[in-house]
This record gives sequence, structure tokens and C-alpha cells, in this order.
Amino acid sequence: MVDHALIHPVILCGGSGTRLWPASRKSLPKPFLPLTGEQTLFQQAISRASDPAQFAPPMIVAGADHAALIEQQIGPGSDYRVMVEPAARNTAPAIALAAASLDPDAIMLVCPSDHHIADAKAFCAAAKTAAELAKDDWLVAFGIAPERPETGYGYIKRGDALGAGFKVDRFVEKPDLERAEGYVASGDFSWNGGIFTFRAGALMDELARHRPEMAEAVRTAIGGASRNGNRIDPAVHDFATITGESIDYAVMENTARAAMVPVEMGWSDIGNWAALQDALNAADQSGQAGNIAPDSANLIDCDNILVHSDGPRVSAIGLQDVCIIVNGDEVLVTTRAGAQQVGKLPGASNQ
Amino acid sequence: MVDHALIHPVILCGGSGTRLWPASRKSLPKPFLPLTGEQTLFQQAISRASDPAQFAPPMIVAGADHAALIEQQIGPGSDYRVMVEPAARNTAPAIALAAASLDPDAIMLVCPSDHHIADAKAFCAAAKTAAELAKDDWLVAFGIAPERPETGYGYIKRGDALGAGFKVDRFVEKPDLERAEGYVASGDFSWNGGIFTFRAGALMDELARHRPEMAEAVRTAIGGASRNGNRIDPAVHDFATITGESIDYAVMENTARAAMVPVEMGWSDIGNWAALQDALNAADQSGQAGNIAPDSANLIDCDNILVHSDGPRVSAIGLQDVCIIVNGDEVLVTTRAGAQQVGKLPGASNQ
Repeated sequence: MVDHALIHPVILCGGSGTRLWPASRKSLPKPFLPLTGEQTLFQQAISRASDPAQFAPPMIVAGADHAALIEQQIGPGSDYRVMVEPAARNTAPAIALAAASLDPDAIMLVCPSDHHIADAKAFCAAAKTAAELAKDDWLVAFGIAPERPETGYGYIKRGDALGAGFKVDRFVEKPDLERAEGYVASGDFSWNGGIFTFRAGALMDELARHRPEMAEAVRTAIGGASRNGNRIDPAVHDFATITGESIDYAVMENTARAAMVPVEMGWSDIGNWAALQDALNAADQSGQAGNIAPDSANLIDCDNILVHSDGPRVSAIGLQDVCIIVNGDEVLVTTRAGAQQVGKLPGASNQ
Repeated sequence: MVDHALIHPVILCGGSGTRLWPASRKSLPKPFLPLTGEQTLFQQAISRASDPAQFAPPMIVAGADHAALIEQQIGPGSDYRVMVEPAARNTAPAIALAAASLDPDAIMLVCPSDHHIADAKAFCAAAKTAAELAKDDWLVAFGIAPERPETGYGYIKRGDALGAGFKVDRFVEKPDLERAEGYVASGDFSWNGGIFTFRAGALMDELARHRPEMAEAVRTAIGGASRNGNRIDPAVHDFATITGESIDYAVMENTARAAMVPVEMGWSDIGNWAALQDALNAADQSGQAGNIAPDSANLIDCDNILVHSDGPRVSAIGLQDVCIIVNGDEVLVTTRAGAQQVGKLPGASNQ
């Protein structure tokens, strides 16, 4: 019994977030950290799609290790389901698990759980627009208005107009700076933020067309799933044989029915400490792009620095464009430019 | 019964070392930290003047708060005395307490306990030279060969030759950079490192001449002292009335019998974290002025940084000329240039 007027949020909790080490660790990864406010990124992702007039209860796709965290963070009395990934196999199988377990006519809104979105209203409005296209079996990507020639994101080139959105001309992988500058200048390109809207059945049909073995393995896993309270545990065996692949590679770049809806919503993937600093600076009502630090910190002659500590007091003198992160038994100090390399540190990669 | 051939080391353990916060704290100040090796600076000061052929057992002048630390660090079975300052009154009264308690003909070698000296042999040779002048009632300062136009130290201008040393033409307070450059270029100036050699009676005579009230108060305090094992506790009352003053102000700049012996011994006052880094780099046999960090630290694209941690692992990316200090519940990150300002931090000044 599906209310076809409602959108089904599918919140993806995979991803390790090694570039936000040492705050983000295997045992408590990025989605479950309160990086941009009192709520964790995961809690914000849930809240953002929680208006019962627009959204059905969410389905959360996560590894077994994080089921307890999810239950703790979502709070008692909430209506939700957790789809436990039998193995981490990237986004295509994770999304397909959700699609295969939903009514084929359910409209899914697939959202990463570790992004920041400043303007929740714009997000909800785009979801509504995308849902209209998805009902006609378009596979719809959110196309985020690019704020700069970012080389760390994929891009979407828009094609012909389609309802309140556009057909996708093509998806583009992370470009070099020169290309990124051209994309932004052209006005035809959006960032691909990994947010998608599908009719569940349409997604499974396209997956069966382009990755038939994956689609079959997912259907078998869901067919043999055990359900216990909020929790769905797909059968392990067939799922484990899947080759991991992103939804972009497996489906979006191959389908003839890719669409996009443009949206401007203060989005960031919080991909590293400098990106977090930018998101917090953007949220700062003072309009001063300055230091982000807890009240306990003591700063002398510092400019554009980020301080994030789980306890110890941080004092800093004479620094510019530096991030200082203190967490447990680890201290990280990096230039903003160096923040991309945090994942290479032994602490981040050998957890 | 004094062996007049031996020099009596007088080790001063006052000073708070706030610019080495957060490692240096009121409860465990700078002299008692192992900053430049396995031994603490205090232990190095003791070892340096421990050859029984040249030195008598040391007298250590310290506040009551640190008597236990001294006993712990000097080790069991050592022959030493601790002169407990009834109140912190700067170096002139501290040195005078030692002088008044020694035989007037004892030759004292007054040394701060929180400096670094790379070449202990050069130190001992200078002590021998200075002792010869002190026997003739010269008040002898060590004149340290200046390595750079340092503005953080006082200078000594040498006068006429005097035995193996020189008369002092004048003492100069911390100069500005232009003057410091002139001093170094002239070849007539040395750094004043606060290391002095006196005949105890001569020092007391000169103190009585220039600061009669201080000399009287010190003599009264020693006259009423209680002795218990290694420990000497001067009477409190008169001493507490003394106005604190350095030995430079109270005596050296006023006496007509100031002399100096030149010495080149790899000296540093370890006045701040950048100075510690310089001392450690100078000691590094590799000859590479690079990063100073524990083996546990992970550095990517860093140059000329110092990492000092009492436990947590430190990771750093992209930094140049930065000091990172982790101690207990405090983390300090400062540029080398900013290291002079550490004492202004609330944590350092409000312990």
C-alpha cells in the first residue's frame, strides 16, 4: 500500500570520510559527526526529508557496523527502516537494494548522508520537481549550481528542456582546472552531488538493462532478506559476488532517460576540512570570512583558520589558512591546500 | 673547611618559562622538562658542573614548590644542598642567599638551570678562567660569542684585557635590531647569558655597597635559617621585604670590578619554542636544518617545523616554520615568528 503522492527518502550511509580524519573514524564516520551544527550530518539528512506531507518514512542503507549508531541518532519513536548492506559495494548496489525492496511505483529520493545543504526549502522544492519527472520514468539527478570551478566534483551538462528540468546531455568526471573553468563560464554545467530521484521500478529496469547480473543479485538478496523490526537484512551470498560500482557508472551514464533538475541550495560535500570551513563560513551570519573556532580557543594574529577539538583547548598564533583538528589521541594540523591529502596519512588510511 | 681549588656551582631554579607553555607549567616548569635530550635542562646543568676535580657539590636555589622535583631529578646518593627561596625575588637575592651561606672565600659559579649548552668542555674551561679572575675579586660574567643579531638578549661590551678575560666596558639591555647588528659586526660585544663567577665574599661586599638593605635582609635570613638534611630554609620575614631585582641591575651594572670571559659553547636560553627548535637543529648531526618531530609524527610537505607532544600522535601537512606543541589538555600551534608571544596566551599567563 504505497501513497504515490509521497517521496521515499533513501539515505546512503556508506563512505568512510577518511579526509575528515581524525574526527571521522571507522567506528564513527563522517555522517555521524555534528560537523556543521548540533545535529550530525546524518540527522540533518533525515530532518531535511521529514515533512510528512511530502515524504514517506526514510529507508537508510548502511553497513551492519553502523546500525546501532543509526538507531541512536535517529531517536526513539521514529518511523524508518534500515537496509543493512551485506557488503560494501559502492552506490549502485546500495541504491538497488532499496529500489528492489520498495513498491515499483514508489518515487525514491536518494541522498548521501554526509553532505551539507544550507537551504532545505530549495532542496524540498527540487525534490518535488524531480519527482514529477521520475513519475514519467526519467532518472533524475540534482544539478547543483556550481559556485566555483571545483575540480573535485563530477559535472552534468544539461540538454533540452524537460518539464521543469532538463534532459542530461552528458555526465563528466572530475575535470582539470581549465575545463572546470570552462564549464562554469558556459552556464550549461552543474555539479553532480549524488542526489537522485527515481521511480523504484524504473531504476531496476535500467539496472537490469545495463548491469543485468547486479540487478539479479540484488533481487535475489532482497528475495531472501530477513526482516526484524526496522531492520532488513538481505541474503548475503549473491550480494557478495557483486562487483562494486557507482550509480553514475552503472546506470546514469548509460541510460537514455537521464534528466536533471537545477538547484541552488548551499550544497557542500564537506569533502575535507577546508570544505567544512567554507560551509561554516558561508553559514556565518556575520558575513566575515574569518576564523572558525570554539569559544575556548585562543587565537592571536590568525586569519581564516579552522579549529575543531573534541576537548583539549587550542591556542594558535600567527597562522593563516590552516586547519587544526584535535580528536582523541590524534592531532592534525594542515594548510587548507593540504586538506585534500589528509586521507593519505597513515592514521587515516590504516584505521 | 673549604677547598679553595674547587668551584661551587650555584644552580638557579627560579623563572616560570611561560613562553614554553603548555609544556612548561607552574607545577612542572621549564628546567624540569627533558627538552633537548633524555635529561632535563636542570639535570644537564647539574651534570655539566659535576667533575669532582673541578667542582664542589652544587647548591640549588629554588622555590619550596619545586624541592621535591629537584630531589627526584637529582637522584639518590647525590651530594647537594637546596637553598629554598622564602619568596621569589629575582636573581640578586637568590644569588645572595647562596653567597651568604658559603665561605666568603668560596668561588661561586652561578648558572641558570633552564639553558642549553652544547659544548660542556668549553663551559668548564671558561669556568676555570673566570675562577682565576674571581679569586682577585673580579665579578665575572660569561660573555657568549653572539651567533646572530639577537634582540632578545642583553649584551656585554668588552673593555681592556684582564688576564685571560677582559674588563667589562658596559652592560647593554636588549637592543633593537639595528643596534644588535652593529654590536655583532663590531666584534666587541658578547651575549650576557646570566652565568657569573664570584668570590662569595666579594659578591656580598659589592651587594652591600650598592643594595645595602638587600644585603642586610639576606644576611638576616641566612642567620635565621633552619637546616634539615640537604635543605636550607632561610628565615622568611626579612627576606619577604626585599624588592625583587636582577643581579645585573643590582650589582653588575654598578660595580667597578665587572669582568668577562669570552666563551663559545653552543649556548641557548631556549627562550621559546623556536629557540628550542634552533638548538635541536644545531645538535642534529645530519646537518639538515629540517623538521624536528618524534618518530610517531606523520609529516607531508612540511619544512622547518617543530613537533613536541607528550602523547597524542601529530600529523601535519603543508606547513613551514611552525611549532606544534601538545601537552595534557592543551594544544598550541604557532608560527616561529609568533613563538615570542606564547607567554601572552591566557593559558600561559593564568596558570
